[in-house]
Amino acid sequence: MNFCSHCGAPVTVRIPAGDSHPRHVCAACGAIHYQNPKVVVGCIPQWQDKVLLCRRAIEPRHGLWTLPAGFLENDETTIQGALRETLEEAGARVEMLDLHTLFNLPHVNQVYVMFRGNLLDTDFGPGEESLEVALYEEKDIPWDELAFPVIEQTLRLYFQDRKSGKFSIHTGDIVRLPGEARRYETRMLREKQKR
Amino acid sequence: MNFCSHCGAPVTVRIPAGDSHPRHVCAACGAIHYQNPKVVVGCIPQWQDKVLLCRRAIEPRHGLWTLPAGFLENDETTIQGALRETLEEAGARVEMLDLHTLFNLPHVNQVYVMFRGNLLDTDFGPGEESLEVALYEEKDIPWDELAFPVIEQTLRLYFQDRKSGKFSIHTGDIVRLPGEARRYETRMLREKQKR
Repeated sequence: MNFCSHCGAPVTVRIPAGDSHPRHVCAACGAIHYQNPKVVVGCIPQWQDKVLLCRRAIEPRHGLWTLPAGFLENDETTIQGALRETLEEAGARVEMLDLHTLFNLPHVNQVYVMFRGNLLDTDFGPGEESLEVALYEEKDIPWDELAFPVIEQTLRLYFQDRKSGKFSIHTGDIVRLPGEARRYETRMLREKQKR
Repeated sequence: MNFCSHCGAPVTVRIPAGDSHPRHVCAACGAIHYQNPKVVVGCIPQWQDKVLLCRRAIEPRHGLWTLPAGFLENDETTIQGALRETLEEAGARVEMLDLHTLFNLPHVNQVYVMFRGNLLDTDFGPGEESLEVALYEEKDIPWDELAFPVIEQTLRLYFQDRKSGKFSIHTGDIVRLPGEARRYETRMLREKQKR
């Protein structure tokens, strides 16, 4: 951010009075431009013992597999956003069930909110942002070709819950470890704290 | 938004190619300026049979009671944000337990993420944004002087869970009804869908 989106004057970075964080502030009109994390909403569309995955037609991670998900828009709820993304990316209609995971990705300033959903039919197909969409049993999931660590963790928790016979809601962080290599650590809200 | 925050040229509102929503787009440099909902994170600090409330020293809703909560910042997780707000607004230290509620407030483009926390001690006190902080039993909660509908719903679910002997995680929407009056409807993700 270089210019004030309100008046067009140059902005500077400083901590406003009464604030604790540096902000982009306009010296001309006084506007403070906050930058905050974004919410990514998505769905695990389930059909019998399978889940629906999409192969990405866009960067980042072109050609890799993911669950339908995208940025929450203004004026919509997380469930409306998850329904919209599932329709846009996978051409699929679902009945949303419960919240499944809330993952923090602080290294990219994102909060992932994923729901479980029942596919209403198998009349699905790739949207503009997908190369193909397909149903996968657990044993056939392309684990080595998933687009993002948060998708792998979401799917592992899903199949773990399904094996246990009880779905629960999982909260945790996916933290990028220091260094050049893309290495991540998953830290779940400790189970002992849950009780 | 009137000017491009990247290059300072005037922006126009249009639907970019391949997009479904109108965006602020810069004709000079091509930047697309997305606007998305913000996450509000907070805590229900519990101590024996009481919860800690703060009386607001700032607008909106100056003088009314609320739970410690505020906008999630970049580079932090929802739990880190909830810990920070609890310290800033109530001078209180908590051990975070589990997620309690995820509420969508589409009329103000906010997603509220509230956790339950155990107060570590009773050495708390008002921060700059609070007039006073105090512990309340359920029967003494100032229900008619709460700042926001989402705070009332969060507290009602909390005490309902506590009575039932089992805490669960609740997802729902708080929708502002049409008309001049401030009237809201709470729509929880239906219990029957949860199974």
